[in-house]
Amino acid sequence: MTTIPPGLLPEGLSDRLPPQAEASARLARRVLDTVAGHGYERVMPPLAEFEDTLVGRLKTMRAQDLVRAIDPVSQRSLALRPDMTAQVGRIAATRLASAPRPLRLSYAGPVIRLRANQLRPERERFQIGAELIGSDSATAAVEIVNVAIEALQAAGVTGITIDFTLPDLIDNLAAGPLPLAPEEIEAVRTELDAKDAGALAAISPAAAAYLPLIEATGPFHAAMERLEALNAELGGAIDSRIAGLRAIAKPIGWDITLTLDPTERHGFEYQNWFGFSIFADGFTGEIGRGGSYAITRADGSDEPAMGFSLYPDPLIDAGFGGEAPRRLFLPLHHDPVRAAALRAEGWHSIAALTGQENGETLRCSHWLDGDEPRAY
Amino acid sequence: MTTIPPGLLPEGLSDRLPPQAEASARLARRVLDTVAGHGYERVMPPLAEFEDTLVGRLKTMRAQDLVRAIDPVSQRSLALRPDMTAQVGRIAATRLASAPRPLRLSYAGPVIRLRANQLRPERERFQIGAELIGSDSATAAVEIVNVAIEALQAAGVTGITIDFTLPDLIDNLAAGPLPLAPEEIEAVRTELDAKDAGALAAISPAAAAYLPLIEATGPFHAAMERLEALNAELGGAIDSRIAGLRAIAKPIGWDITLTLDPTERHGFEYQNWFGFSIFADGFTGEIGRGGSYAITRADGSDEPAMGFSLYPDPLIDAGFGGEAPRRLFLPLHHDPVRAAALRAEGWHSIAALTGQENGETLRCSHWLDGDEPRAY
Repeated sequence: MTTIPPGLLPEGLSDRLPPQAEASARLARRVLDTVAGHGYERVMPPLAEFEDTLVGRLKTMRAQDLVRAIDPVSQRSLALRPDMTAQVGRIAATRLASAPRPLRLSYAGPVIRLRANQLRPERERFQIGAELIGSDSATAAVEIVNVAIEALQAAGVTGITIDFTLPDLIDNLAAGPLPLAPEEIEAVRTELDAKDAGALAAISPAAAAYLPLIEATGPFHAAMERLEALNAELGGAIDSRIAGLRAIAKPIGWDITLTLDPTERHGFEYQNWFGFSIFADGFTGEIGRGGSYAITRADGSDEPAMGFSLYPDPLIDAGFGGEAPRRLFLPLHHDPVRAAALRAEGWHSIAALTGQENGETLRCSHWLDGDEPRAY
Repeated sequence: MTTIPPGLLPEGLSDRLPPQAEASARLARRVLDTVAGHGYERVMPPLAEFEDTLVGRLKTMRAQDLVRAIDPVSQRSLALRPDMTAQVGRIAATRLASAPRPLRLSYAGPVIRLRANQLRPERERFQIGAELIGSDSATAAVEIVNVAIEALQAAGVTGITIDFTLPDLIDNLAAGPLPLAPEEIEAVRTELDAKDAGALAAISPAAAAYLPLIEATGPFHAAMERLEALNAELGGAIDSRIAGLRAIAKPIGWDITLTLDPTERHGFEYQNWFGFSIFADGFTGEIGRGGSYAITRADGSDEPAMGFSLYPDPLIDAGFGGEAPRRLFLPLHHDPVRAAALRAEGWHSIAALTGQENGETLRCSHWLDGDEPRAY
């Protein structure tokens, strides 16, 4: 094999350098501080777990997509986490099983997978999130959506769009008011994903009954009116979903764009009645997502939960949040007490080591002249 | 195979729960803020790299101790990082090769290895550090040691002991004023590690000349006097080392305990002339280490560097830094503007979802009664 150049990294893995690394850390702090303010307490699950217990909670993850290794201690397969939500669910279901509900937990850290996909070429991502365990009510959804928005806004993100979806809508309609043969369901889903009315109608007369859902997509209030019209035709079969979406949307401020895509399913494999994606102006692809789901308790029963995860790397890659600190050059024999006082005021000091350094070359805007910073 | 209980984690991997997880995050922030104040800029290397390039910079790491996987993209072996210092060296030598020197970089994140050792049963650790690239002078060492102390003290750590060592001392003495046959060097090192004077003298008359180093160990000033006495006998052969240690010790305050163990080598496989370990009262094992080393540039030449890494997990495990936030229960229909104002004052608020919750059960000390927090 040829030698790998010393600076080459594997595809989908990369270094974050100054000032982007600092911007990423600052964004994570502000998000975590905001969710802490709402009572979400930090947990730190490990990077790796037994593959069996991890994959059991990752319904859609294929084992070959994980970074795995045989544990020399147990001779069992370990897997690196591709996601932290499942780990937080494990903690809630085991070590914190007897903690009072609702249980509010937050987390942040890197996640990694061996195989990326075309939509997301990066194999390592930074994930930050909050989970509310013990409820999946509309009230819980209101809290989760609003905490997610507040956290992003506290971090300086503007132009936020939230796209609501109803992940289990098709299954519920197919099992009830708009019956579909089992073999038709996937075809209906595919054409709804493609928003292809002609292809949907061509599947079968039963499938054609789903045509109104294609129109119930887009800006929230107009789309909701179309969804409500369908609900009226169905005799109120999805009243609870309509009421839930209305309740969640109500307290959201006007500086957020709300949209609805009731049949969107990509990435909502865990969610049941409610899901949402988060976008921000100027960034392609979603920066976060969330919704309602169920955690499997140790006894096999389900516990309702609601949460969100943010993946802020695209924001940082696009140059978000770069703030240059004020850099102060400290010549040899400077007053260390004065330098410490200036650091406490927010200066970042760069001390001379040899007396030969040039503060401007080291990107300092000022140098310490006696007691005072002086501009170059 | 038997089924793994859903809550079981592999040996050496563990969850950090509230409030320890928050204490860990707070400690990391304070350390990173302190080093940022001294001009160290954050970098974030990836969790995994090509095994060849990673191991090439990890002189003493065995490949079988790493978590490894075959990269389906390149068909090369990837390895998870067991240490971040080597990654920062790679960044300095490649992407930041042309950045002005001295280059000050900081980092923080999890590191993982497949096999633990007896001294350290944990396989995942949190590492925080700072590296000063472009100098390994005594002045650089003064900065690094003092920034490490200041960072730990800013995080609230007290009772700090710093143990200095001279990692390449034996090699230099053996190649010069106290010659040893190549096959004797390892035996001399072993007996110096064991502080076994009898066994050391028994190796050979040449080895017996190293006996004074056993006594040059312990509280700094007394040990330095013995090291200086040996230096005088050797005609000043280690003048530069003595002067370096004196220079580094001079500005260190009296609230730190300084010790010297000039032949300590465990964990200093990278360091050349200077190394140090950090301990804190009440915690067994070191909580950090650092020293001087060389980074291999892309052209094969060496660049001097100095740095430190902290591994604060033992501090957190011992209960360090747990601060309970003030938790405020928000009944249904509370004033959200008032609640936001109280969060801005530092309260963590826990909102009612159903009206059935008991704030005290949710560990709230107060509840929002109209506009004011009222104690339970």
